Amino acid sequence: MHPDAHLSELFSPASIAVVGASRSPIKLGHVLLSNLISGGYRGTIFPVNPAGGEILGLTAYPTAADLPRPPDLGIIVLPREQVLQAMRELADAHVDAVCVITAGFRETGRDGFELEMEMAELARRRNITLLGPNTLGLINTGIDLNATIAQAMPAKGSISFFSQSGALCAAILDWADGESIGFSKFISLGNKAGVSEADVLEALGDDPDTKVIIGYLESVEDGRKFQSRARLVTEKKPVIMIKAGTTPAGARATSSHTGAMAGNVEAATAAFKQAGIIRVESLEELFDLARAFAAQPLPEGPNLTVVTNSGGPGILAADACEDAGLNLARPSLATLEKLTEALPPFASIYNPIDIIGDAKAERYRATLEAVAEDELTHAILVLLTPTASAEIVETAQAVIDVAKTCAKPIFASFMGDERIGPGRDMLLKAGIPCYGYPEPAVRAISAMLAHYRWKNRPYPVEVCFRRDKGRAERTIENALNIGLTELPFADAMDIAAAYELPVPETRLVRTSEQAVRAAKKMGYPVALKIESPHLSSRGEVDGVALDLHTPREVRDAWLAITARAQRKRPDIYIAGCLVQTMGPVKAREVVIRFTRDPQFGPLISFCMAGPSAEVLGDVSYRLAPLALHDVQDIVREIRSFPLLRGVRGGEPVNLTAIEDILLSMSQMADDFPEIREAELNPILVDAEGAFVTDMRITVGPI
Amino acid sequence: MHPDAHLSELFSPASIAVVGASRSPIKLGHVLLSNLISGGYRGTIFPVNPAGGEILGLTAYPTAADLPRPPDLGIIVLPREQVLQAMRELADAHVDAVCVITAGFRETGRDGFELEMEMAELARRRNITLLGPNTLGLINTGIDLNATIAQAMPAKGSISFFSQSGALCAAILDWADGESIGFSKFISLGNKAGVSEADVLEALGDDPDTKVIIGYLESVEDGRKFQSRARLVTEKKPVIMIKAGTTPAGARATSSHTGAMAGNVEAATAAFKQAGIIRVESLEELFDLARAFAAQPLPEGPNLTVVTNSGGPGILAADACEDAGLNLARPSLATLEKLTEALPPFASIYNPIDIIGDAKAERYRATLEAVAEDELTHAILVLLTPTASAEIVETAQAVIDVAKTCAKPIFASFMGDERIGPGRDMLLKAGIPCYGYPEPAVRAISAMLAHYRWKNRPYPVEVCFRRDKGRAERTIENALNIGLTELPFADAMDIAAAYELPVPETRLVRTSEQAVRAAKKMGYPVALKIESPHLSSRGEVDGVALDLHTPREVRDAWLAITARAQRKRPDIYIAGCLVQTMGPVKAREVVIRFTRDPQFGPLISFCMAGPSAEVLGDVSYRLAPLALHDVQDIVREIRSFPLLRGVRGGEPVNLTAIEDILLSMSQMADDFPEIREAELNPILVDAEGAFVTDMRITVGPI
Repeated sequence: MHPDAHLSELFSPASIAVVGASRSPIKLGHVLLSNLISGGYRGTIFPVNPAGGEILGLTAYPTAADLPRPPDLGIIVLPREQVLQAMRELADAHVDAVCVITAGFRETGRDGFELEMEMAELARRRNITLLGPNTLGLINTGIDLNATIAQAMPAKGSISFFSQSGALCAAILDWADGESIGFSKFISLGNKAGVSEADVLEALGDDPDTKVIIGYLESVEDGRKFQSRARLVTEKKPVIMIKAGTTPAGARATSSHTGAMAGNVEAATAAFKQAGIIRVESLEELFDLARAFAAQPLPEGPNLTVVTNSGGPGILAADACEDAGLNLARPSLATLEKLTEALPPFASIYNPIDIIGDAKAERYRATLEAVAEDELTHAILVLLTPTASAEIVETAQAVIDVAKTCAKPIFASFMGDERIGPGRDMLLKAGIPCYGYPEPAVRAISAMLAHYRWKNRPYPVEVCFRRDKGRAERTIENALNIGLTELPFADAMDIAAAYELPVPETRLVRTSEQAVRAAKKMGYPVALKIESPHLSSRGEVDGVALDLHTPREVRDAWLAITARAQRKRPDIYIAGCLVQTMGPVKAREVVIRFTRDPQFGPLISFCMAGPSAEVLGDVSYRLAPLALHDVQDIVREIRSFPLLRGVRGGEPVNLTAIEDILLSMSQMADDFPEIREAELNPILVDAEGAFVTDMRITVGPI
Repeated sequence: MHPDAHLSELFSPASIAVVGASRSPIKLGHVLLSNLISGGYRGTIFPVNPAGGEILGLTAYPTAADLPRPPDLGIIVLPREQVLQAMRELADAHVDAVCVITAGFRETGRDGFELEMEMAELARRRNITLLGPNTLGLINTGIDLNATIAQAMPAKGSISFFSQSGALCAAILDWADGESIGFSKFISLGNKAGVSEADVLEALGDDPDTKVIIGYLESVEDGRKFQSRARLVTEKKPVIMIKAGTTPAGARATSSHTGAMAGNVEAATAAFKQAGIIRVESLEELFDLARAFAAQPLPEGPNLTVVTNSGGPGILAADACEDAGLNLARPSLATLEKLTEALPPFASIYNPIDIIGDAKAERYRATLEAVAEDELTHAILVLLTPTASAEIVETAQAVIDVAKTCAKPIFASFMGDERIGPGRDMLLKAGIPCYGYPEPAVRAISAMLAHYRWKNRPYPVEVCFRRDKGRAERTIENALNIGLTELPFADAMDIAAAYELPVPETRLVRTSEQAVRAAKKMGYPVALKIESPHLSSRGEVDGVALDLHTPREVRDAWLAITARAQRKRPDIYIAGCLVQTMGPVKAREVVIRFTRDPQFGPLISFCMAGPSAEVLGDVSYRLAPLALHDVQDIVREIRSFPLLRGVRGGEPVNLTAIEDILLSMSQMADDFPEIREAELNPILVDAEGAFVTDMRITVGPI
């Protein structure tokens, strides 16, 4: 990391004070100092210990005040009660950054929480970068800095890792050791009293030694900040993350672990997506992807060519491709000719290219050379099973040789263990990701393609619609002034009209004759809906009649609706009925909502109307403000999208009309923080356009 | 395997002739013979080679006719052209079984296919058990038999593996070598000209040395036979399988690999499910589960208790539990008391039990001993990350010690590689499945619970409903006699009535006055539906009016419907309209269909009505005949089931009414092979009962 980059005081200190350095090998203060020394750190180390003297060959100072010069970084490894005092002394000694290894703060209850708040406040006041408390520490292999209480020091490499779980860092350091995978920075976030995941992400984004960022999070401190910083970082390099605590059981475990409330899962998911973060579901996938991104270029399209010496794994790869949205494209004619020449007659030259069980290394080499030049192929996957004829090491060498001259990403799956081991190790050392099974290789390629598409997506277009903000403002103010939280229907529709949403013409009438006159003026057909401030849903009294074509139908409906309402709810005040122009009759129905997430802000959702979408969880989410591609994505992302595009010869609906409403809602969320929630349900949509028939708005003081 | 068990001539031959045994070490005939010898096979081996003499120290015979006595098993490793002749000679020598290693048959095209058919016919005629062609061979570790062309011989153990892909066998043999996992039998099915997967499954089911069966299949030879045999085997032991070629891309790859047509995916999935086979999606999962089933008892309930020395992995395990349908139940009060005593104050004694990063082996031991006795816990998962304080080997020993006296299944995930390696190896050797991450451990436990529930499911209840088979038979015969394939509506409804399905009363009328009279007789409300032999769908002419309450509404509807039909389709004959009693008005709508799968027989499906179910793939399938638990499962399996159970205070529908219709359809499928397809769409269902409003039946000669 450049000295002037963010957090350089943490990652690249010229000098470090270890407060709590100890002579006793079982104490963490000893472990940390010893790790610093044995890691080969070349800066100055100042052990601080009240007894002074010498520790591990270094002069120890009784207090931070005794240090010969201000250290860049102070690391505190003391009992909880002594931490604040030590931090004050470091502040007085003009330290730039402090890392508190000590645990026992927020995660243990109220006392710890208050101590942690004091610590954070002190850091803010004295302008100190604070990492922790309750952190395992950090590593920067670039300057041989191992400032952790973990034992292992990973090999140098281009992956950086940050984690909210210290123990996970320890596991990964151990794992990295055995897998010839190299790291640049390692940072255990601890309780995040100072440095947050957003800060670290930004720093790693600017770090020239970091090519791939991987992270483990349980909670996000400031959702908006995290999202906006992450979006900038993912333009430059892949960010792969696992978010734990996404299920109810996981969320309960999280809150008992960190004392943090897990946020709204949908909001977090949308934030990750809109920031271009690659989200994975398991640790295994996290490392599978890290390895792939670190070693290979991104595929520039979805066409994967599979070369295999056995049919079965080829089929499994084909299944995995279909699931992951990759194509097994047929090679070009030129390539097919080369393959026909190079391969025996029983080989399958289409894709998967099955070069058969008796294939030796040279057959792999010839095939790979042909495929490397195939202009229709975007990525290559080499499968090998250890058949009697297989030349494992020689085949690995052939893959490595071809990869050297090939701009396309190449991946391998050598299946087995003992026999294929030497070949696998060669591949890994040469930067060819090699997996034990075809499926994870295919998933990695698919994730890389998604990242390629993210980086090459069109520049986000922000749209600003005309609207009468003053009119909406007056309506909302009025409601707030009289203490309303839920706007009356008419007011909500008025705001909709102010945003030029396609709403029906609506009039409140008090008699059936007024209804007939209103209908005549608007033009038939009309709808009639009971109106009462005491009804939360008209369905409760069956208070809606649709598609009324004649005065007589309107009168009949009036009678039926009002009589039913009086019978079913004799206790309520009935203001009359609304007469409305009818929307399209054979329309499909969709719903747009927004709510405000405490961490991530306004969350807009889209789904088909009806209980089915909810039961099946077929709802898509995005955080506002929405750009043009966001609204296009949110509409297409629901699994029911074919119903809008038209199935079995059905006409496609006017998607632009829906997208326009989504953009307006995004704007409304931005214009009026007073609007807490809004729901358009249902919106009728057909080939012509969309039609908002009902809107609910909940408001509250800011 | 017992000598009298199935396929003992293959798995436990007393003598083996290797036809094509060769002196040249690069020939497969040499490799196979050499593997047989070095594997330590204790029976008699007869090399057969035209040159005679001695091969690898054994006397070779010029032809099978020269053998001193009939071999139990003949293995053919010859060029394709010589295979049939060799098989004839073996038959004349009274061989019991033949295994054909040679490839180049069905998988290579028509010539090969015909040769293979000849071979199969010869085996049938001469009563020879035929394995292959195109097989890697087979292994029986119990008698040190390695009759394969693969190099490795796995350790002895209780897992048996069969595979349609020979190369996969090779990969797995290599993999097993490195993972201290033991096998009993290994069989490469090859082209399945003789022995099929059903035969092998049955044999392994009866094999006392096999505790867990795992398999890889691309196609199934005889679906019905496979399903019925598998069902018996899974009563005794777990069968874990991966079925490749389940996506369109995978199916294309399969057919180019084996020449076999991949069957209907839904039918195969239903067959696996109804046979109690544990289906996995990846090779990794196949082995993860095999290891778990081989080593641990089944959990007898869903309550998993997680013990961890770090919060993060605990949360990941909790997320995985939620996804897999397991509970993280709170331990009993007695256990909580023990834990409070044994653990430091910052530990979390609830589940996941977080014994914190400084935990040494003794803290693990005390916790595990308490959990082992906890009466609410059904299974235990021990997580360890290599923190500075972790005692890895000692913790592994504690787990092993507790497991010895604990009847509950215990699993571990030691995370990392180098440092945790010795602990992991100890656990694996001691039969404690140890995974690199928490997620696969949780998935394995969940699969074991599913198998436990399968084995303890209620005895299947077969239901036979009263029906008027003769009446249905006459209707179908009439239709077939006049060459119909799709039955007229009235006939289909007649068959429905013969099966006592809840159908509306229906009359065909020719004038509006007849319609009014019919309606009066049936009782209002009624429905009116256009009837014409030339319409495939009434929707085409908008030819349905529902919920008619008065003579006037019936007359208006008559006029509207017939006029529309004449205007839109002036070319067709209109027979009149059907008057029908109306079903429930506010009902939910479901669909029941059956089709016939060429491999697995009648396939019954169930879904909600409307395009949504189809688009979202929310359809459940079962193969007929259906038992009582099948129809209960098929209804509850759709993701939309909450819509039937009632959401947001909605009333639950009468599920028994739907189940009865499913049982009747199953019976109809069984009674009349002439019925090729049938569809009840929609069936109206409410809290009272179900009501079949439309039925389509397609028939054809048997």
